[in-house]
Amino acid sequence: MKVNTNFDKMVPSYLFAEIARRVSAYQAQHPDQELIRLGIGDVTLPLPAAAVEAMKKGAEDLAHKETFKGYPDYEGYAFLREAISGYYRSFGAEVSADEIFVSDGAKSDCGNIGDIFSPENRVLVTDPVYPVYVDSNLMAGREIVYAPCTRDNGFLAMPDEAQQADLIYLCSPNNPTGAAYTRAQLQAWVDYANRQGAVLLYDSAYEAFITEDLPRSIFEIPGARTCAIEFCSLSKTAGFTGTRCGYTVIPKELERDEHNLYRLWYRRQATKFNGVSWPVQCAAAAVFTPEGQRQIRENIAYYQENARLIADMLTACGVYFTGGKNSPYIWLQCPGNMDSWRFFDELLTKAQVVGTPGAGFGKNGEGYFRLTSFGSREKTAEAVERFRRMLS
Amino acid sequence: MKVNTNFDKMVPSYLFAEIARRVSAYQAQHPDQELIRLGIGDVTLPLPAAAVEAMKKGAEDLAHKETFKGYPDYEGYAFLREAISGYYRSFGAEVSADEIFVSDGAKSDCGNIGDIFSPENRVLVTDPVYPVYVDSNLMAGREIVYAPCTRDNGFLAMPDEAQQADLIYLCSPNNPTGAAYTRAQLQAWVDYANRQGAVLLYDSAYEAFITEDLPRSIFEIPGARTCAIEFCSLSKTAGFTGTRCGYTVIPKELERDEHNLYRLWYRRQATKFNGVSWPVQCAAAAVFTPEGQRQIRENIAYYQENARLIADMLTACGVYFTGGKNSPYIWLQCPGNMDSWRFFDELLTKAQVVGTPGAGFGKNGEGYFRLTSFGSREKTAEAVERFRRMLS
Repeated sequence: MKVNTNFDKMVPSYLFAEIARRVSAYQAQHPDQELIRLGIGDVTLPLPAAAVEAMKKGAEDLAHKETFKGYPDYEGYAFLREAISGYYRSFGAEVSADEIFVSDGAKSDCGNIGDIFSPENRVLVTDPVYPVYVDSNLMAGREIVYAPCTRDNGFLAMPDEAQQADLIYLCSPNNPTGAAYTRAQLQAWVDYANRQGAVLLYDSAYEAFITEDLPRSIFEIPGARTCAIEFCSLSKTAGFTGTRCGYTVIPKELERDEHNLYRLWYRRQATKFNGVSWPVQCAAAAVFTPEGQRQIRENIAYYQENARLIADMLTACGVYFTGGKNSPYIWLQCPGNMDSWRFFDELLTKAQVVGTPGAGFGKNGEGYFRLTSFGSREKTAEAVERFRRMLS
Repeated sequence: MKVNTNFDKMVPSYLFAEIARRVSAYQAQHPDQELIRLGIGDVTLPLPAAAVEAMKKGAEDLAHKETFKGYPDYEGYAFLREAISGYYRSFGAEVSADEIFVSDGAKSDCGNIGDIFSPENRVLVTDPVYPVYVDSNLMAGREIVYAPCTRDNGFLAMPDEAQQADLIYLCSPNNPTGAAYTRAQLQAWVDYANRQGAVLLYDSAYEAFITEDLPRSIFEIPGARTCAIEFCSLSKTAGFTGTRCGYTVIPKELERDEHNLYRLWYRRQATKFNGVSWPVQCAAAAVFTPEGQRQIRENIAYYQENARLIADMLTACGVYFTGGKNSPYIWLQCPGNMDSWRFFDELLTKAQVVGTPGAGFGKNGEGYFRLTSFGSREKTAEAVERFRRMLS
């Protein structure tokens, strides 16, 4: 009996535990101070009414023999996949309903997609990076190489032809940096992936925050259908972090190593997954109705205004940052060349604001800091004021 | 770029597709004949009212800022894990809430648990077998060995000390055979697993159908805490096939190869899963209330009566079978030494009843046939009458 000792290669994640420890210690010493938390990556506004109503109706369906639903389709109900396909069409990406797999979230799919690839593949991720891409591949025993994101490239790493890679993870708009690729930049990645024979694993979880003329899907880029798989989620689009629904797109023609990747993933899901809850699929479909879209746009606009408040203050104070527009995240360079944790302590003790040290997302995150726009307007405005006072 | 070519080792599953093909062909030729389907493994009665109400209340929670729920705990909410722990206690198994992981279903966990073990482990499964155990391990590149279930051992394979195994899958009451292990038999498996240093992966998805004095959990067996992981589900217990909720139990002291298995699984889930939908966890917790338990017992009793009707007819006709009590499945020897598919055709064309050929579950399933009790009372009684007429 041997366990999977690749788990030993995963660095235990102390980031959020360490934040909690420092915050608790501060609070214990300063019980009267009111903290504002701009570190969390979780939404706070309620689910859109259209989704709640659809979910309740879905629950009621299960109460009656005539409308009861048993095992769902592995790939999701057709009505939801059609709705997602229509959503893609609305911003100019052609994705057919039978290329879509509905799941319980983009994190599950990003993690599980590795099942269809060999452990011998080399994985390219950016640095800083969403830790799931790294950990799920370390767990599988894959070699990982890094594309550095720095102030020099605006935290948007570009392909290096000299670097060989089989699997390439990109997230745009990015978590944690908020930076978003242009069409030309994504075209360069698609061309590189096709030349390398690599598969581009594209995480578009934050696409709904894009306001400028930037691609919202990798499938807006010519050539993507022969190299890309896309993961998206309703978590940030529609406040589904606690409702759990995402989707993965695999073009029917995508092949590697003489295997069709859609069919491999279908077989993986049919073997190790059993579909998404009926009321959740009903709620997800409601998000894509005209009323649902109007409601989610209101929520997203609320978060975007929070992001603007933070971004405007940083601009006024002369602090370098990425994100803040096209993204709920703001990634700032710690003032005075402080390291990430030193700045965390400064912000906590001088402004009573909690954020996330960039060093927790990779080597190139050192000296940077992540704020999020998912708080309330009042708290965000107050945090911005405190931040400004601290800097001046 | 290499794909995971272990997928090539998986035999494409034609079982249900072939059933559908033969049924369609028959229906096309005999459009006036009314078929009765006793082949499906899916429930048909509506969800218990307590679960539906809790699910709707959970949906309403998401509509308001004060009660909104974001990312759930990876291992499930404490209130649900406490309820499951109490359920275990009700039939004499001690499982603490912090040994329980809530998930979207036992199939996901049965499939994904392999992530924490080495691909070099040897896997022991019974034959016939629930295909997920085989396919998920073939996919990971593991060697699979079989413990034969036959009429001689009542379709309850017992350990063979000469056979080395690292991972052992048992399902009791069994899918597809309906056979259920006694306490003494499970003790022999637990002792064997402990002697081998193996891990027993115990699927108790059908435990709620047990009526006789048989163990409902592997954790009723002394020694199980040092060798067993248990998977259970609300799919058959409470009609959750379309609602999606299951749970996995890993004793805190379970270690192998100098690793704690609870901690490995926690890390796996934290990396590649994001918890179960809030309204679904609310519905699941309602199943474990006194009212929920009363309601599910009514539904289970309905299916059990269907099973009894089938079993009584087979007994009267002198047909050998397993299951029918302690299980929603009836596994019968095809009359007249017919092979599984020949009997499928006979039953379809002479009685217009659809079942599942046992050969689809493994070599030892040849000559056997599975019926299920998940149909309506009227259809089941009618099918029993037709079956009886065909045999006489």
